[in-house]
Amino acid sequence: MIESGVSHIEKIRHVLVAGGTHGNEYTGAFLARHWLSDDSSLKRDSFSTHVLFSNQEAFKICKRYVDRDLNRSFNPSETVSNNRALELSRARDIEQWLLSACGGGMPGAIFDLHSTTANMGKSLVLTNREPFNLLLLAYLRQRFADVNAYLWEEPNSQPGFLNSLSSKGFAIEIGPVANGVLHAECVVNTAALVHACLDFIEEWNSGINSPLPSRVPLYCFRRHVDYPRGSDNLPSAMVHPELQNRDFQALQPGEPVFLGFDGSVTLWEGDTVWPVFINEAAYYEKGIAFTVTDKLDVEISGLKSKLS
Amino acid sequence: MIESGVSHIEKIRHVLVAGGTHGNEYTGAFLARHWLSDDSSLKRDSFSTHVLFSNQEAFKICKRYVDRDLNRSFNPSETVSNNRALELSRARDIEQWLLSACGGGMPGAIFDLHSTTANMGKSLVLTNREPFNLLLLAYLRQRFADVNAYLWEEPNSQPGFLNSLSSKGFAIEIGPVANGVLHAECVVNTAALVHACLDFIEEWNSGINSPLPSRVPLYCFRRHVDYPRGSDNLPSAMVHPELQNRDFQALQPGEPVFLGFDGSVTLWEGDTVWPVFINEAAYYEKGIAFTVTDKLDVEISGLKSKLS
Repeated sequence: MIESGVSHIEKIRHVLVAGGTHGNEYTGAFLARHWLSDDSSLKRDSFSTHVLFSNQEAFKICKRYVDRDLNRSFNPSETVSNNRALELSRARDIEQWLLSACGGGMPGAIFDLHSTTANMGKSLVLTNREPFNLLLLAYLRQRFADVNAYLWEEPNSQPGFLNSLSSKGFAIEIGPVANGVLHAECVVNTAALVHACLDFIEEWNSGINSPLPSRVPLYCFRRHVDYPRGSDNLPSAMVHPELQNRDFQALQPGEPVFLGFDGSVTLWEGDTVWPVFINEAAYYEKGIAFTVTDKLDVEISGLKSKLS
Repeated sequence: MIESGVSHIEKIRHVLVAGGTHGNEYTGAFLARHWLSDDSSLKRDSFSTHVLFSNQEAFKICKRYVDRDLNRSFNPSETVSNNRALELSRARDIEQWLLSACGGGMPGAIFDLHSTTANMGKSLVLTNREPFNLLLLAYLRQRFADVNAYLWEEPNSQPGFLNSLSSKGFAIEIGPVANGVLHAECVVNTAALVHACLDFIEEWNSGINSPLPSRVPLYCFRRHVDYPRGSDNLPSAMVHPELQNRDFQALQPGEPVFLGFDGSVTLWEGDTVWPVFINEAAYYEKGIAFTVTDKLDVEISGLKSKLS
């Protein structure tokens, strides 16, 4: 444990809290709906918090998206294309609204609220190693020992997440919960993480004095693993019961990963990895049964120097 | 425990096993797909088993249905109407196909495979108290101690389930599992229940000799309970964490049932009930947060006389 006492360059004046970026992920959608009617718990002294219900059209039909994944639509090269997908237009509208709401720039930090059918627990999905994000991860782990962070850093890929509009912030992704369902525990935990993130930014703006752990684990993208598939391109096997729910836990060579409908078992070939997003509903169509990561131990105490 | 030795009137010659009646319930959909390519585990000596993938159009878009709920479309008064919903036409096609496959009549028994986001475990949804169904329930409980049966018998209502095409059989409904997801354990357990149902019919056709429990619990429909809703008709509260996952367990007066987004708690008013389908995704639109039942203790040993 260290007293971090971080100094820093830039205060954060505008924060975006978004939910319903995927219309069938009710945790964020209903929290956004609630906070749009009563944002008292989001108010802090040193910055403004803006609430966004990102994709209400998809929410109305209880689908992840109408035409295409909104959370893959913030890639600049795509948003200016002639593609008429509702979500590309929605992404442009959100950017315009943010410019107007945040005094001509993008928000200083973005928290986008998601849910997952995988047993990810209280997870954060980071897209970079910004000191702000790693310090916030440490701050959250100090308060919620079971928070885990996945760094979705694919080489040569700009996935176009809503979060990519700011280098600070991340997706908060709590599961397992079915799509189209409110699990009170997931909703309460998500709200608690958001409130803690906002508390952290108050400290960020005035100097971080909270004790932080000296090191935190970070699960870094290595590669996606797809299901075995039949000639109809549908999965011919399922995530093995021994792998199901074991997100963020070590997968050793020789352990079972898939169970075929014919009873066949596929074993893990390769070295030790840490799978995440095991059996996420939305990733069947993306060709992802789970994603394997490397577990890194990140030093928090050294971050102060990077900031000054 | 009794030796039932039931005699009976009518042998069963045709059995239907259906899956994918709801397109986003992958357990049944993928089992139907598997058994359509290899039905060797479904073959028995004394009857034919027919496999149906009920709603492939809904499966392709990973939705419960395209135009309307297929499993509410087998009500005779509706299937002859001029409504052009895909599922009404599909229901008629299924009936025609069954007449042709089953030698001019409906199947002697139907097992329709569903999944639920509620923590229903290994559950059966019966629509009547036919001795066949109660004996089969007893037979299954003898083999799987954690099987529970919900009798969905709404007064003055013909819900139009696929199962209503035969008085024998029921829906097999295992959860919790998210829609659009394969949980291997749910799939394996569903297949095991189907195989046991087919084994039972072999006995039914030749004389039931297996030992059966003398009594079984049956959870009988009392009424549906909806969410508190806001002016936008969306839920203003969630199933309370203390009620979530407690399907088939007693709910006592004064226990919490809902948690509002404003933190308010709704307590159960009324006598002791046994809730089922707590927080099923598909029932948000049907105005059902959970269904309360009465727990009955059904005598199995007396069923023999009813049959002879």
